[in-house]
Amino acid sequence: MKIIVDAMGGDNAPEQIVKGCALAAAEYGVDIVLCGNEEKIREVISQNQLYSDRFSYVDTGDRVIVMEDHAECVVREKKDSSMAVGMQMLKNNEGDAFITAGNSGAALVGATLIVKRIKGVKRAAIGSAIPTLKGHSMLIDCGANSECKAEYLEQFAVMGSAYMEKIMGVKNPKVGLLNNGAEETKGTDMHVEAYQILKNSENINFSGNVEGRNAPMGEVDVIVADGFSGNIFLKTFEGVGLMLLKGLKSVLYSSATTKLAGAVIKKPLKNFMKRFDYSEQGGAPLLGVNGVVIKAHGSSDAVAIKNAVRQSIEMVKADLISAITASVEKK
Amino acid sequence: MKIIVDAMGGDNAPEQIVKGCALAAAEYGVDIVLCGNEEKIREVISQNQLYSDRFSYVDTGDRVIVMEDHAECVVREKKDSSMAVGMQMLKNNEGDAFITAGNSGAALVGATLIVKRIKGVKRAAIGSAIPTLKGHSMLIDCGANSECKAEYLEQFAVMGSAYMEKIMGVKNPKVGLLNNGAEETKGTDMHVEAYQILKNSENINFSGNVEGRNAPMGEVDVIVADGFSGNIFLKTFEGVGLMLLKGLKSVLYSSATTKLAGAVIKKPLKNFMKRFDYSEQGGAPLLGVNGVVIKAHGSSDAVAIKNAVRQSIEMVKADLISAITASVEKK
Repeated sequence: MKIIVDAMGGDNAPEQIVKGCALAAAEYGVDIVLCGNEEKIREVISQNQLYSDRFSYVDTGDRVIVMEDHAECVVREKKDSSMAVGMQMLKNNEGDAFITAGNSGAALVGATLIVKRIKGVKRAAIGSAIPTLKGHSMLIDCGANSECKAEYLEQFAVMGSAYMEKIMGVKNPKVGLLNNGAEETKGTDMHVEAYQILKNSENINFSGNVEGRNAPMGEVDVIVADGFSGNIFLKTFEGVGLMLLKGLKSVLYSSATTKLAGAVIKKPLKNFMKRFDYSEQGGAPLLGVNGVVIKAHGSSDAVAIKNAVRQSIEMVKADLISAITASVEKK
Repeated sequence: MKIIVDAMGGDNAPEQIVKGCALAAAEYGVDIVLCGNEEKIREVISQNQLYSDRFSYVDTGDRVIVMEDHAECVVREKKDSSMAVGMQMLKNNEGDAFITAGNSGAALVGATLIVKRIKGVKRAAIGSAIPTLKGHSMLIDCGANSECKAEYLEQFAVMGSAYMEKIMGVKNPKVGLLNNGAEETKGTDMHVEAYQILKNSENINFSGNVEGRNAPMGEVDVIVADGFSGNIFLKTFEGVGLMLLKGLKSVLYSSATTKLAGAVIKKPLKNFMKRFDYSEQGGAPLLGVNGVVIKAHGSSDAVAIKNAVRQSIEMVKADLISAITASVEKK
């Protein structure tokens, strides 16, 4: 198996990206194609004495998409960048999957316009494995499509269900529509319409609306959302978690005795918090695209990249693209 | 001052409502008009030997709006219910404020159609004091208006700013637009338009978009949202908080030593968590209405009701309605 990686994308590129790829190549026994500035990549390898037997290189010199670039540059001014070239390789079957920690907007545009959507898919969507009390649920869409039509949401549900079933091993995953109440008349006109489409869909196991209050409990396996409110959900989730963690820290540092208590609970707390650590998860799959594309977090470290590679291998092995293609055709 | 209370609204009515009113009457020295089944109210008073010197009663018998009722019943089939009668009294200046823990939809319809909106206000909105690392921010709208026009959001910003300034004592409150990114081109078309209106508004101190990741840190004082995503934010906030609290409990109960640690941090943790306790906050003000109307949480206990009465007194004393009227007229 050959995984194509944008070595230049993200806050910690190329060092952490290359390190993560070395870990992954050694642990999972896959070939990795690194797209980027070959000189800089080789420097990282030699300075850190990284395992590089399974690496190959596509030198894109200094052509890199940065955070400030507008999304469309990936198919225009910067179609010779590390991200664009990696995606073209995936399109040409010169690798089995593509991973980038770079500019999200550009990754989405590139996935849609270079790798292209699966036939019949109306909009590609960003999925994200959300930690819950029970394990993980897939939130889809996390922000690719701020404006949605109801029919898109059914496809998001189908794609999210395929991911949960094939990758997370959940049989007949329960789908909930992220909404502002339980009743089927809740939400905007689009949500009311989406509810009916989801309810009548034979391709998914729809269990009604899910609220932000219940979703973190793990009530459903797939949380279907328009990209705008899905993004609000995702970031609020992150923000509240961070805030409470800071609050807990301030409590634990408030006196000598609480500091002792903090030392006692440190390890079990860390274990519990592990599921909230995005670097353990891998990245966000771009679903609906005709190839395995993963958008890793911009601040990914080597462990996050290693796990994104693992995740891409799982997606390739499970042949998720064929599963989604079949589900979308069935409709 | 005279506060009108729907004694029959909410999961714990009339007992907790009446108890809360007794506490408030004693502590704040206000008159309270209880609308509801007078016999049942008097039973609660005598059984619990409550302070009732400042109570008066408007007997509405068994006419109560329940959770299952549709919102419009407050002006139709149930316009003789405890909620509807209380609102009519407020409209007729037979009291200074109105509080209900009953059906939210009906409370909103009643506030809009019985008490009526302030002249010039396009939509009434539900505000909520959100706990943050720094204190509290006002989220507005929390769910009254699932579909919004950009111009509504400016009024929400004005009303939320008036609340933060007059009631929470924040000078020149910072306003953020809840959005899926920092740049002014982010979000749906409506959000892009709202950004420009807010940016150009002279009535508020706009500081740009705020994301769900930053809002819990207390980055802004007023979080302006369309009612749909505001509701997603609010409930996700609640859900993630509950989930993490459950997780922390499971950590603290995992062994004998962690139980000891738990005993040590119990008190400072409780102090920190106090700000997340809605019963300490009071209720959600319905802003834009031509009178002080507070929607208390459906599961309010006596303390929550007492605090809602305190909050209503503050709103009356600060003459928030006049402040909002003046701000809206200025536009």
